[in-house]
Amino acid sequence: MKLATLRNGRPDGHLVVVSRDLTRFASAGRVAPNLQGALDEWERCAPILRAVSDQLNNGEISGMTFDAREALAPLPRAYQWIDGSGYLVHLDRVRSLKGSIDAQLQDERPLLYQGGSDSFLAPTGAIVIPSDDLALDYEAEAVVVTGPVPMGVNRVDASAAIRLVGICNDVSLRRLVVDDLENGFGFFHAKPATSFSPVFVTPDELGEAWGNNRLNLRVRIHVNESLYGQPNAGRDVKFDFADLLVAATRTRELGTGTIVGSGTIANAHDDILPLKHDGIGFGCIAEARTAEKAVLGKARTPFLKPGDRVRINAVDADNRSVFGAIDQLVQLAT
Amino acid sequence: MKLATLRNGRPDGHLVVVSRDLTRFASAGRVAPNLQGALDEWERCAPILRAVSDQLNNGEISGMTFDAREALAPLPRAYQWIDGSGYLVHLDRVRSLKGSIDAQLQDERPLLYQGGSDSFLAPTGAIVIPSDDLALDYEAEAVVVTGPVPMGVNRVDASAAIRLVGICNDVSLRRLVVDDLENGFGFFHAKPATSFSPVFVTPDELGEAWGNNRLNLRVRIHVNESLYGQPNAGRDVKFDFADLLVAATRTRELGTGTIVGSGTIANAHDDILPLKHDGIGFGCIAEARTAEKAVLGKARTPFLKPGDRVRINAVDADNRSVFGAIDQLVQLAT
Repeated sequence: MKLATLRNGRPDGHLVVVSRDLTRFASAGRVAPNLQGALDEWERCAPILRAVSDQLNNGEISGMTFDAREALAPLPRAYQWIDGSGYLVHLDRVRSLKGSIDAQLQDERPLLYQGGSDSFLAPTGAIVIPSDDLALDYEAEAVVVTGPVPMGVNRVDASAAIRLVGICNDVSLRRLVVDDLENGFGFFHAKPATSFSPVFVTPDELGEAWGNNRLNLRVRIHVNESLYGQPNAGRDVKFDFADLLVAATRTRELGTGTIVGSGTIANAHDDILPLKHDGIGFGCIAEARTAEKAVLGKARTPFLKPGDRVRINAVDADNRSVFGAIDQLVQLAT
Repeated sequence: MKLATLRNGRPDGHLVVVSRDLTRFASAGRVAPNLQGALDEWERCAPILRAVSDQLNNGEISGMTFDAREALAPLPRAYQWIDGSGYLVHLDRVRSLKGSIDAQLQDERPLLYQGGSDSFLAPTGAIVIPSDDLALDYEAEAVVVTGPVPMGVNRVDASAAIRLVGICNDVSLRRLVVDDLENGFGFFHAKPATSFSPVFVTPDELGEAWGNNRLNLRVRIHVNESLYGQPNAGRDVKFDFADLLVAATRTRELGTGTIVGSGTIANAHDDILPLKHDGIGFGCIAEARTAEKAVLGKARTPFLKPGDRVRINAVDADNRSVFGAIDQLVQLAT
């Protein structure tokens, strides 16, 4: 089933079930007050939500027109947002930019950072930045939402704890990354609010698009009218979501509704921008710039600026959107 | 007024108003489903909660016996937990332990790290560690809980956004701090679940114990029967809570119910353990060990081990507990 959260003036919004083709929705307000509430009582709620989903998909209930512009992030705020480093290609490409003190690739155990989860951006909400000189970048990622996960979980139980799957834009301010890392306390100012796809989907609903604890879909990224990337989130995965959950529970349990990100999706290739029709491209601009430096001697793709639009959309083999698109305008804070 | 959350089998517990002397409580379940709910509608809820508090304190309602062992963290889970570095004495003392690459003290702008907020420890719940070789330490801190805070807030508005005040034990696994910092992504494994005082208190209720955006109380720390520290949280403050909030909103807003920590409370002195009756001592064991290395040539105070009990309690001039005590046993995961 596919779940979304519609704007209703409350911080946690209104839970709805969305049809497979993302055109219609039915309210789930009688099942749970919001998505976190449904996750908190998943054993009770999931079967009811699934029944609504079946009725919506087979036409027993007609539902109402789903408009992604009315959607908040499926969890408009969450109790935890952890971002991992599933794709070593990404770390390899951007390492020189990040001011890391460790020259050795982190290939034994995934890196994880604790992200802010108090106020996520709506999928079509503006990305508001405090000034235009902070090197705003997108980072296209796959994410999962978990049930409760015990400390020291094994891969099998970790996999079984995954309740929902989606995508995100892990908005990054590149100019502040080095500051944050040099301070030694980790990412903070460089990682403002993250945005998520309008819809999160259960693993079973994804069929072949979910397997081996990874999302096997192309994630297409446009900046304004230009295709910047279409990497496949299921390829070149060094650490899958089970690995990330095992790593995250090394010293603690994870509460219900924890969101875990894959890290910037990155496939191996030799492309530079502008991208050819069948090119793979980049899950973030920093990677594109690094490739340009290597090939052309200098970076030429600019970071995002006010007025730019960034669109991130996971598509199936028939180019149909699976989670709905993240589609955001960059704005300067007034 | 003083607020607490009692265990009721639900993740967010049951909100209660506690008497000034911490002996009695009255349910606030009719006002809000839980503390986050009350914070979300603070303008509506605060006056009602204050009226209940007044009735409880003047004897109009008798209430029931308050037992801190029934209390969860006031926010058993929160949407955000940010920890700051308000006391440079602490950073100065532990710098050599932390593997920081930056020799210069961060004295222009506070350091902040994003902590996990998905499942906090109850004030009398066990601290469960995965193994006994991770150098478990306590960190005694003051904390505030905020309403919504806009990006780029000024000091006056930051101060006005502080809704509640309390204390915490920012549980730390020292052996993993260096790993976390060397990885470059910041604290993660070294900072398992944090514990909080049974009661959070509004700034107005604190009277002179709250002023200049800091908590002017001694925080007494015992490990088993030994006094390890009694620093005053209002002294040697380099960055007060307004400073921390200004810093935290540099690139983003803070959602309602954000908890911000002061960093380990540390006063300047030349004590070592065992502490004299009027000694100041240490807000964490790492500091005590650093002082021992300087004075004795080697550290002798051990980190916490299974079976140890750590008690952290903020007291007024008459030695009365203000927030109730954090009182926890260390246990090894089974």
